[in-house]
Amino acid sequence: MDKETGRLEAFSDGVFAIAITLLILEIRVPKLEHLTDVALGVALRGLWPSFASYFISFFVVLLMWMNHHELLRLVRGVDNPLMLCNGLVLLMVTFVPFPTAVLAQYLGTPATDTAAAFYCGTFVVIALTYNALLASVAHNHRLLHGHLESTAILKIRRTYHFGLAVYATSTVLCFWNGYAGLGLNVLMLGVWLSLRYQEPVSSSK
Amino acid sequence: MDKETGRLEAFSDGVFAIAITLLILEIRVPKLEHLTDVALGVALRGLWPSFASYFISFFVVLLMWMNHHELLRLVRGVDNPLMLCNGLVLLMVTFVPFPTAVLAQYLGTPATDTAAAFYCGTFVVIALTYNALLASVAHNHRLLHGHLESTAILKIRRTYHFGLAVYATSTVLCFWNGYAGLGLNVLMLGVWLSLRYQEPVSSSK
Amino acid sequence: MDKETGRLEAFSDGVFAIAITLLILEIRVPKLEHLTDVALGVALRGLWPSFASYFISFFVVLLMWMNHHELLRLVRGVDNPLMLCNGLVLLMVTFVPFPTAVLAQYLGTPATDTAAAFYCGTFVVIALTYNALLASVAHNHRLLHGHLESTAILKIRRTYHFGLAVYATSTVLCFWNGYAGLGLNVLMLGVWLSLRYQEPVSSSK
Amino acid sequence: MDKETGRLEAFSDGVFAIAITLLILEIRVPKLEHLTDVALGVALRGLWPSFASYFISFFVVLLMWMNHHELLRLVRGVDNPLMLCNGLVLLMVTFVPFPTAVLAQYLGTPATDTAAAFYCGTFVVIALTYNALLASVAHNHRLLHGHLESTAILKIRRTYHFGLAVYATSTVLCFWNGYAGLGLNVLMLGVWLSLRYQEPVSSSK
Repeated sequence: MDKETGRLEAFSDGVFAIAITLLILEIRVPKLEHLTDVALGVALRGLWPSFASYFISFFVVLLMWMNHHELLRLVRGVDNPLMLCNGLVLLMVTFVPFPTAVLAQYLGTPATDTAAAFYCGTFVVIALTYNALLASVAHNHRLLHGHLESTAILKIRRTYHFGLAVYATSTVLCFWNGYAGLGLNVLMLGVWLSLRYQEPVSSSK
Repeated sequence: MDKETGRLEAFSDGVFAIAITLLILEIRVPKLEHLTDVALGVALRGLWPSFASYFISFFVVLLMWMNHHELLRLVRGVDNPLMLCNGLVLLMVTFVPFPTAVLAQYLGTPATDTAAAFYCGTFVVIALTYNALLASVAHNHRLLHGHLESTAILKIRRTYHFGLAVYATSTVLCFWNGYAGLGLNVLMLGVWLSLRYQEPVSSSK
Repeated sequence: MDKETGRLEAFSDGVFAIAITLLILEIRVPKLEHLTDVALGVALRGLWPSFASYFISFFVVLLMWMNHHELLRLVRGVDNPLMLCNGLVLLMVTFVPFPTAVLAQYLGTPATDTAAAFYCGTFVVIALTYNALLASVAHNHRLLHGHLESTAILKIRRTYHFGLAVYATSTVLCFWNGYAGLGLNVLMLGVWLSLRYQEPVSSSK
Repeated sequence: MDKETGRLEAFSDGVFAIAITLLILEIRVPKLEHLTDVALGVALRGLWPSFASYFISFFVVLLMWMNHHELLRLVRGVDNPLMLCNGLVLLMVTFVPFPTAVLAQYLGTPATDTAAAFYCGTFVVIALTYNALLASVAHNHRLLHGHLESTAILKIRRTYHFGLAVYATSTVLCFWNGYAGLGLNVLMLGVWLSLRYQEPVSSSK
């Protein structure tokens, strides 16, 4: 991996790190009508939609960072199409705090379905940008390390296509029932994290 | 590129990464009068000025980061004038979220022209700081790698002058019609991004 | 330490740096009824709960960063369980600004006990994630440098267990008296910082 | 400079970069009563105290970063006292956005003197932490590169003492007249920046 890749990686890591940290700013300190310990306890428990949104978004962004990490390790150089596709990925990663805040505000209200669809729909667009990033890297093996087998790329491509399908399904589900769509999302998040947990570390270099 | 340049680059990258990520904080979760899915959908669509401002600013800052990247690659050492001119660039880069928020708030209202002029005017000042940065680097080939041809620098300088002219024109246009000024801005952004997309990667080292 | 560890460290450092810096955003500029120098002075002094919360949280996060730093220095490679446990640590580190803001808002009011318990309780969860991180690293010496003695790990493990006990005790204390719980917390923070201050630098490599 | 120093530097750079970028969040988009281009123009001009505070704080933090940079270049290793003194510096650097926001809000109002004194007083404390950092580094040449002459350290120490004296004087001036204190501050900032601008780059390694 050359110096240019290093700088692209460092910039991307910075954006991921900031986006994941800004999520917390969307949880607001509750205002109390009666200043008592009990009231504060009730108000904090009432923030469960914020905590849930924060929790899901955090792990989605973390997983996206790990995927980004994994993909960039296969790359031997940077060119402008890669930089622009990477820019699209980062555009969407930095966008995540906003649908998270919308979900935090409206989860559990009569506007749950729209909030959940907007939230899951964001991940559809993110999945599209990851597919574009992969294409910009893997087209004709343009930027890949020479010794990589096509099967390694195929496996990643299949994962990305599957992710896109899951997010699209969950978005459609949200129009019927927001909790169902979110539930599918969280379920798959759990599956992916536990798959990763068991996976041996790949040593591509 | 020596260690000092590395630290300057890392600090600048950090500032670019944070500025580009803070843009999202300016989009506020809409407040609903009637808590329904339809109302939230309408309210989210009503945020188009915020999304548009976010989108434009993101790619402008990304392009500025790529330019910064490209320029710093030509540099072989850091001195204090370079550090101060770089400081001016960063001052303006970190400023971008504010005019973006102003545009997000007032685009589509009777105050569109002023908001757009303020927004485009910010890029005029940014273009000035980039020209100052280039001057601090290229004056007498002071800090450039020895083997660089003058034509490479000339090409960058011409691009910077052209960018300054475009932003100045779009600012003036805004006083007549804000959408026209913004349109020119977006048009040139598209041109620059697609030029970059086609450009072969320059390998100056 | 290999390149992968380097990137994990850099990402974690970014998250720590951002979380520690976001703390200040929770202190709000006071609004004055009467615009006078005296009124502003009084209002600024009235922010003492915010300053105190900021101060404590800053040093807790700094200490956590130093601990993270110290632990990662012992590691010779990264695998997915380590990445996920590290993710849990970062999830909780980025969460810190929220209980800090709650404490800043309600310290000194009749809701002090709940605010303090929520604040101290957060550190209990953080201590748990650190223990998980240590376990993911040290289990069967899986990811440790070969020459490390078991006593070095034992010492760290004992410190982590002790920290967990302290935070749990202070949380329980808060249900009785918020100031007592916070006081224990601050006391131990002072002890740990002064222990570190005297400690010779360990050179494990 | 060893790896440990590198990680301390990277963490500190991250904190500086974030603190300098968060300054912009304190400038709020003006709310208009009458939605017209003229009204927005007037409102933006009315933000001059925010722009001025932003501008001064940006360059003060930039200068502090350059000083930090310069000092750490002389260091050959890191120990815990250095880490804690560096922590104090960072505590105060991340604090800067708050007094900046206070100044932005109250500059030009009858509460100017207190706001300016609070602002300048912050820099007094920052100057104290820099003196502590220098002491932790230079005491008995503990952590310095062997070939450094005492005069280099003496020169830095004199600069730090002078900075402390200037900030203390400007704070005292603020109690008499806020503009006078701020004026002294800005004047010295200009002097320091122009001195740096002329200074040949020191090559200590």
